[in-house]
Amino acid sequence: MQAIGIDIGGTKIAGGVVDENGVILAEERVPTDASDPQGIVDEVVAMIERLRAGHDVVAAGVAAPGFIDAQQSLVYYTPNISWRNEPLRRHLTERLDLAITIDNDANAAGWAEFRFGAGRDVSDMTVLTIGTGVGGAIVSQGRLFRGGFGAGAELGHLRVVPDGLPCGCGAHGCIEQYGSGRALLRMANEIADVGGIGLALAAARTRDGKLTGHTVGRLIAEHDPGALSALRQLGFWLGQACASLSAVLDPQIFVFGGGVAEAGELLLAPIREAYLTHLPARGYHPEPDFVIAQLVNDAGVVGAADLARVHATAR
Amino acid sequence: MQAIGIDIGGTKIAGGVVDENGVILAEERVPTDASDPQGIVDEVVAMIERLRAGHDVVAAGVAAPGFIDAQQSLVYYTPNISWRNEPLRRHLTERLDLAITIDNDANAAGWAEFRFGAGRDVSDMTVLTIGTGVGGAIVSQGRLFRGGFGAGAELGHLRVVPDGLPCGCGAHGCIEQYGSGRALLRMANEIADVGGIGLALAAARTRDGKLTGHTVGRLIAEHDPGALSALRQLGFWLGQACASLSAVLDPQIFVFGGGVAEAGELLLAPIREAYLTHLPARGYHPEPDFVIAQLVNDAGVVGAADLARVHATAR
Amino acid sequence: MQAIGIDIGGTKIAGGVVDENGVILAEERVPTDASDPQGIVDEVVAMIERLRAGHDVVAAGVAAPGFIDAQQSLVYYTPNISWRNEPLRRHLTERLDLAITIDNDANAAGWAEFRFGAGRDVSDMTVLTIGTGVGGAIVSQGRLFRGGFGAGAELGHLRVVPDGLPCGCGAHGCIEQYGSGRALLRMANEIADVGGIGLALAAARTRDGKLTGHTVGRLIAEHDPGALSALRQLGFWLGQACASLSAVLDPQIFVFGGGVAEAGELLLAPIREAYLTHLPARGYHPEPDFVIAQLVNDAGVVGAADLARVHATAR
Amino acid sequence: MQAIGIDIGGTKIAGGVVDENGVILAEERVPTDASDPQGIVDEVVAMIERLRAGHDVVAAGVAAPGFIDAQQSLVYYTPNISWRNEPLRRHLTERLDLAITIDNDANAAGWAEFRFGAGRDVSDMTVLTIGTGVGGAIVSQGRLFRGGFGAGAELGHLRVVPDGLPCGCGAHGCIEQYGSGRALLRMANEIADVGGIGLALAAARTRDGKLTGHTVGRLIAEHDPGALSALRQLGFWLGQACASLSAVLDPQIFVFGGGVAEAGELLLAPIREAYLTHLPARGYHPEPDFVIAQLVNDAGVVGAADLARVHATAR
Repeated sequence: MQAIGIDIGGTKIAGGVVDENGVILAEERVPTDASDPQGIVDEVVAMIERLRAGHDVVAAGVAAPGFIDAQQSLVYYTPNISWRNEPLRRHLTERLDLAITIDNDANAAGWAEFRFGAGRDVSDMTVLTIGTGVGGAIVSQGRLFRGGFGAGAELGHLRVVPDGLPCGCGAHGCIEQYGSGRALLRMANEIADVGGIGLALAAARTRDGKLTGHTVGRLIAEHDPGALSALRQLGFWLGQACASLSAVLDPQIFVFGGGVAEAGELLLAPIREAYLTHLPARGYHPEPDFVIAQLVNDAGVVGAADLARVHATAR
Repeated sequence: MQAIGIDIGGTKIAGGVVDENGVILAEERVPTDASDPQGIVDEVVAMIERLRAGHDVVAAGVAAPGFIDAQQSLVYYTPNISWRNEPLRRHLTERLDLAITIDNDANAAGWAEFRFGAGRDVSDMTVLTIGTGVGGAIVSQGRLFRGGFGAGAELGHLRVVPDGLPCGCGAHGCIEQYGSGRALLRMANEIADVGGIGLALAAARTRDGKLTGHTVGRLIAEHDPGALSALRQLGFWLGQACASLSAVLDPQIFVFGGGVAEAGELLLAPIREAYLTHLPARGYHPEPDFVIAQLVNDAGVVGAADLARVHATAR
Repeated sequence: MQAIGIDIGGTKIAGGVVDENGVILAEERVPTDASDPQGIVDEVVAMIERLRAGHDVVAAGVAAPGFIDAQQSLVYYTPNISWRNEPLRRHLTERLDLAITIDNDANAAGWAEFRFGAGRDVSDMTVLTIGTGVGGAIVSQGRLFRGGFGAGAELGHLRVVPDGLPCGCGAHGCIEQYGSGRALLRMANEIADVGGIGLALAAARTRDGKLTGHTVGRLIAEHDPGALSALRQLGFWLGQACASLSAVLDPQIFVFGGGVAEAGELLLAPIREAYLTHLPARGYHPEPDFVIAQLVNDAGVVGAADLARVHATAR
Repeated sequence: MQAIGIDIGGTKIAGGVVDENGVILAEERVPTDASDPQGIVDEVVAMIERLRAGHDVVAAGVAAPGFIDAQQSLVYYTPNISWRNEPLRRHLTERLDLAITIDNDANAAGWAEFRFGAGRDVSDMTVLTIGTGVGGAIVSQGRLFRGGFGAGAELGHLRVVPDGLPCGCGAHGCIEQYGSGRALLRMANEIADVGGIGLALAAARTRDGKLTGHTVGRLIAEHDPGALSALRQLGFWLGQACASLSAVLDPQIFVFGGGVAEAGELLLAPIREAYLTHLPARGYHPEPDFVIAQLVNDAGVVGAADLARVHATAR
């Protein structure tokens, strides 16, 4: 049984026809004009029409950034597109004779990881996506955890420091400011500033006065001590956040995705270390696994399609 | 359809026959000898035998403190009774011809509140029980959230201060050390130490050198400025914790139970205030209600019975 | 070539004849009366006379607690015996026709470990003896490091916390207050006070109101979470001290002796973890080994004898 | 007997022929191109060839920044030149028919001070060089202390504050961040910020918006209260570090070199005061002297030459 998944991003819309095993049978992508919300709806409709032409699909799932309501019909708010309380499901259903579901993009990608990636052997999984920011997804007892208003699993906004660094969400001290790719750059710059083991970092930024994520990633891959020190700081904060998340969510596995997670074991080692140091009831609380995500591309498309298929067939 | 609920506490075992509406039809309680784990099993068996004698029950649920596994069969650990990996369900099933389930006591009480109390009109609820410590329970999409290992919803061990006060769980900075009845006493003592608005608190402890929870509760009821100041500090910490919990769990309602919650609106007001100040994405994130628990006594008995009934009839 | 070693302790004097391989050929011990310093000198003379009777010894070495001068002749000060600037070597030489050397007892024991124990394959070793307090010994380029006044290697008095806990030495924040057996008891008591994972610790002290080192050691051996948590705290502090000691002393190996070191890998793991986290120039600084001492009994006797033999034959 | 000393710095290479009394008989210096490691080796070879032409030298010693192995043959790492595990001794020996030794530059300069400067009458000396950073050297029983891996005596990285200021070495709270010239500037700026006694400091920086080391040095020489207050803060931290170093190294003398030490007694007075306040076992521990280094220029050249001579003649 096939379903369509659509992933609306800040710069492009990706879509695909996905089968029950998470395999993408057909795919396309077009650039997004974030300033034209109506145009995005038109493009999603057109893409679904094109994709369903050659396939027998039972439903289409749309993944979008921001807050989606728990009924998977309304987009409260997206950070890039000027949708506010947009009844996206109704607008799509009116123009397409097809079952439609809407989901948050991090939730959709986490669901794909649960169904077809690192989480496929467990029932309870917590995903932290370490990109520019920190995204999250929760699966509990085999079900995607969306929260009472559809705004749950925003794990990047768990607070780790009272009165800490200001966050883009308006609060202070969120783990996003201590555990994201942007935080890694800040830590790397601080190490470069004081020289010493940060000399390679300092040298790397002399070209244009600042470090890029790409450069820091390369220095991590070369095991540069300054870059590794920044990565370890990041890992320690993430491990501390996971200790709190274990007390609340108690997953069997923590999965780390996003660009920074390409560091693999170099990132996981300090996470595990800090987790164990800060785990409440250590010695009594069963200990989860810490792994890197397996799905790299198109997790949003695959997850959105699978959630739509599950929803359609559960009726 | 009736079920039996048993609530094993540190000083007593309470049991009752409960109907589908959460009404207790028969009830008894006996003192516990925590140093005799086998005796406790014997007493639970005897109590279930006596209670089922006059009623047609479909199942029995047992609530116990500590960690229960996700299959509701094993007690990993209880803080007071020397059970370690105790196969309690098997031991009871062997001696009773009856479907048995085991649950954590805070989860059972939270479930009762969800079914028959403050949470009966929502699908997603978070409970914080403010007694000597801080207990927690989570209901998501109408289901009790137990975690992947059965050790989830230990909300008292969400960290609010890095390297903060040492906690009985072995970690530091848990909300239990800032938001519990024990924390309220500490804050009240600190205010008493410096005099001023703490004069009534200081006077209250001169009798025997220290403050009791009862005395602080009485002074709160009398609106003593020092006692209210301590309560506000407690509420601010709890509200901050709720802001983090909203990012993760996104409940429609936060319910506060336990002895300290008898302060009612005096406790809820600072909680709401601190919650809004610290809520990530305030203005975009839908805002939950904050209420006091409605079930006071026997929530553990009622919840354990209802969970057993649901489990038995779902088969 | 044989030599005599004498180890003067707070409660007994031990002596032995030791061969070039560190084997004790004859041994005796008598109780000490710490309040009779002249009697101790008489007893040391008598013991050396008895031990040399049946053996062909070239020298005798005496190990004593406290500060010994760099010429190994004078006891500045011992914490238990009322010697102040006692010319012990002259007093013994006048009564015995034998080459005599005097050394600090921790230095003597560390030397034995270097020659015949965990340090026998390296040139540079740092020993931390974790007993009631924290003792130290340093070997550099195959030579015992005594310091310019003979008062070096007092590693228990490296400061780890500015304005920290008061220490028996009159200073504050010494590692002895964070890394000793006495510190372990304090940490265990703190964990017992807050209950939770400290319940076994709390139960163990109910008999007479306080914990003993023996009880905590037993609970560590049983992997009790509260006792392990205290041991980990101890290890974290010791690892941080070792990071500073590496910057100064740069040993190839850190050796941990004393009663607390019987915990073995349970102690070494957090030490290594904290060491790496705090090591200056991590990634560039070669990393030492962390091991448990191999000599358990009579290290002071063996080391004192060997130091005397080395000194006598180097002439 | 004469030897050649070469001191490789970040901006120049200095070399000289040195006699047994530490007198420089011939000298030259050339600029360094730190980005051309091979060119530096070529220049060192050429300089040694030129210097030995007119003199009968027995050996040449090379001082370089960074970590040198304990066999004085390999440069693990230098902060400025891109040498990693560079077999410098072999490369030089292959091209020069001369005994060559390699040493860390701070160690070489400290050795010169021990042989021909402030340390010439003692056996155990600790040097702290207060320049932009904090360098160190240790002499024990008349021998240079290099550590088991050649990376010892990095005294600037003794930790004085847990979780303190970040350091260029990747760790936190090192004395280098509290006792260096850079730290003096930070403290002077902080005093300038709050005005009052810092008015002269504030005025001095209005010219171009920041203070220079030169300006602060001039104000210290003029006994400006704000500048002296910053210097006293620096001295207090250094004295506290010396108290810990006495417990470990127990030198007979502490020698202070580097540009900041030109303040002389104004720096030594707060060092002595803080040392005595924090000395473990004060009253029992013999007290060392605190003095300013006597060799100002070319200590690296003199020390490198002398170490090479000692090494060559000891064979």
